[in-house]
Amino acid sequence: MSLAPMVIEARQAVQRTASRRSTREWQALDAAHHLHPFSDAAALNAQGARVISHAEGVYLWDSDGNKIFDGMSGLWCVNIGYGRKELAETAARQMNELAYYNTFFKTTHPQVAELSALLAEVAPEGFNHVFYTNSGSEGNDTVIRMVRHYWASQGQPQRKTIIARENGYHGSTIGGASLGGMTYMHEQGDLPIPGIAHIEQPYWYANGGDLSPEEYGLKAARALEAKILELGAENVAAFIGEPIQGAGGIIIPPSTYWPEIQRICDQYGILLVADEVICGFGRTGEWFGSQYFGIRPHLMTIAKGLSSGYLPIGGVLVHDQVAKVLIEAGDFNHGFTYSGHPVAAAVAAENCVF
Amino acid sequence: MSLAPMVIEARQAVQRTASRRSTREWQALDAAHHLHPFSDAAALNAQGARVISHAEGVYLWDSDGNKIFDGMSGLWCVNIGYGRKELAETAARQMNELAYYNTFFKTTHPQVAELSALLAEVAPEGFNHVFYTNSGSEGNDTVIRMVRHYWASQGQPQRKTIIARENGYHGSTIGGASLGGMTYMHEQGDLPIPGIAHIEQPYWYANGGDLSPEEYGLKAARALEAKILELGAENVAAFIGEPIQGAGGIIIPPSTYWPEIQRICDQYGILLVADEVICGFGRTGEWFGSQYFGIRPHLMTIAKGLSSGYLPIGGVLVHDQVAKVLIEAGDFNHGFTYSGHPVAAAVAAENCVF
Ligand SMILES: Cc1ncc(COP(=O)(O)O)c(C=O)c1O
Ligand SMILES: Cc1ncc(COP(=O)(O)O)c(C=O)c1O
Repeated sequence: MSLAPMVIEARQAVQRTASRRSTREWQALDAAHHLHPFSDAAALNAQGARVISHAEGVYLWDSDGNKIFDGMSGLWCVNIGYGRKELAETAARQMNELAYYNTFFKTTHPQVAELSALLAEVAPEGFNHVFYTNSGSEGNDTVIRMVRHYWASQGQPQRKTIIARENGYHGSTIGGASLGGMTYMHEQGDLPIPGIAHIEQPYWYANGGDLSPEEYGLKAARALEAKILELGAENVAAFIGEPIQGAGGIIIPPSTYWPEIQRICDQYGILLVADEVICGFGRTGEWFGSQYFGIRPHLMTIAKGLSSGYLPIGGVLVHDQVAKVLIEAGDFNHGFTYSGHPVAAAVAAENCVF
Repeated sequence: MSLAPMVIEARQAVQRTASRRSTREWQALDAAHHLHPFSDAAALNAQGARVISHAEGVYLWDSDGNKIFDGMSGLWCVNIGYGRKELAETAARQMNELAYYNTFFKTTHPQVAELSALLAEVAPEGFNHVFYTNSGSEGNDTVIRMVRHYWASQGQPQRKTIIARENGYHGSTIGGASLGGMTYMHEQGDLPIPGIAHIEQPYWYANGGDLSPEEYGLKAARALEAKILELGAENVAAFIGEPIQGAGGIIIPPSTYWPEIQRICDQYGILLVADEVICGFGRTGEWFGSQYFGIRPHLMTIAKGLSSGYLPIGGVLVHDQVAKVLIEAGDFNHGFTYSGHPVAAAVAAENCVF
């Protein structure tokens, strides 16, 4: 386990600010050792990745000194902008105080308790509980396991199927990619898994035909009703959707869509899950996209804006109606080493009250 | 979006160190709002969680001032101990410099390039590429998608099945829990997914019967050969195992086990995946458990010790034999918003050279 000279050299590079190596050197290291998400590695390596070295407010700088307006907000996540010193101070203070502890074995810590209370305060009426993950993907995997556990605990174990939408995005885990409706993801890894069904997306520009947006919104929503009847309502656990589809192309549904989805979920007693990973934490001008559209979900998946991307953290906000059942249902055999990580929780709390 | 007085109060609590509220108050907030991983919520809430408020070296302190020896090292992850100021400084410096940027769209950053080069240096010969995730679970979901993509890219799309072990632990996502062999997890969420098969664990004390450990090690390994022949070798993508099973009960296999597993994987051309989430980063006295046992894997899942738990980060180390194919295979439609997060990467690099 002795450290080779290159390790020591790498250490020094890591410890200094982003001005030590040249762009060419970083590109070479990156091409030689880093497999990027959602990329064609050969093409990227031939071209050389742009090296982002610094950010402040809404601007990025690359390692050649170019200043770039960050119109995408990181990856739809840096809701409060870059360079907020309060968050860095919080992270460092918390890391010195308690860098990690688990929440599995009858233990908690102040940071996760405080963040949970804070989220209950900012979330819509009736959302008083949080289950923590590290990402939106893990949040949606949690949704799958949670809604099935919920129904099984209520004596309806056959209620397993979750209905989602074509061209929806719910992450890249096996569960998240299965809920998502991206065929180019399904093709890599034999997805979706059983028990996930997809209906058409509410995309008027592509699918509306001669209908007005309002007429089409009703029609698209009624695809849910048709699917429920096809599967048998007694077999359907939940419907999941992004209030506004993000990765699918910023698809804003007609105003009639969500009220009709709500009616259908209510009528058939199906849980309604809002994937708020992009829409949450102020992006629509409300705390959650559900509030913007007047949706009353049972579960809300959160990530991204929860910490403004400063640290990885995600979760599921759980409405009392579901939480009550889960709390009485005995062990929920689910969770992640870093569920409610104290440093991420402290930074998320600081971000939420910014 | 106005902030209620309670939010402001919560903010103040979060911003101060862990001495502001009483144990009773934190327990009450926790019970009211926090759903714990792997817990019976009603039982926990009735009892009240222990509040861990501070840690230093190998010791924890709870909010009542009790000093506790942390024999479990967090959750098998705080490999370098608590309170290492260098890591907190690195986190704060990096958060001020570049709190986040994505690695999806032909961009990289110095921290992920440096960490990748460093991991290639400390990993066994031939491991020169890293794909990043936020956890061990996401790492194993990545393994599932990656090995299927690898085989499909080689014209063998039918090679889908991954063989794992009863009582193995590979995480809590749909993919991770399916690879794992925990029946109490499979029961909640209709798992495992198709394309995962399980064989017996190499647990001599329970299953050895009249055999010596060495005889039993060979027998347990040959369960893999039997399963491959049952499924048809041409349908098997990979075998995955923890070098030492952690959550299953620290199950150390007989010395004959891994060499025989290696022989079988070699003979049938099956990819060998070592889940190094617990064994990695020094826990066995070597950098990786694979080195301790002389295993030559194609992929290694990493998390936990990668950052000593100071921040959430995980990944998959990819051997050249697999990386070569993936790099030439076009787009890999997989990844996470926080893949290679700059703050987590900077802290992990600092941790690895500590
Ligand atoms: C709506 C939605 N859900 C889930 C996810 C997955 O989140 P993550 O990348 O953090 O796993 C994303 C990511 O873009 C998303 O946009
Ligand atoms: C061997 C192994 N793999 C995977 C995991 C899952 O890691 P995480 O909890 O970070 O998702 C664990 C967690 O304990 C583990 O022990």
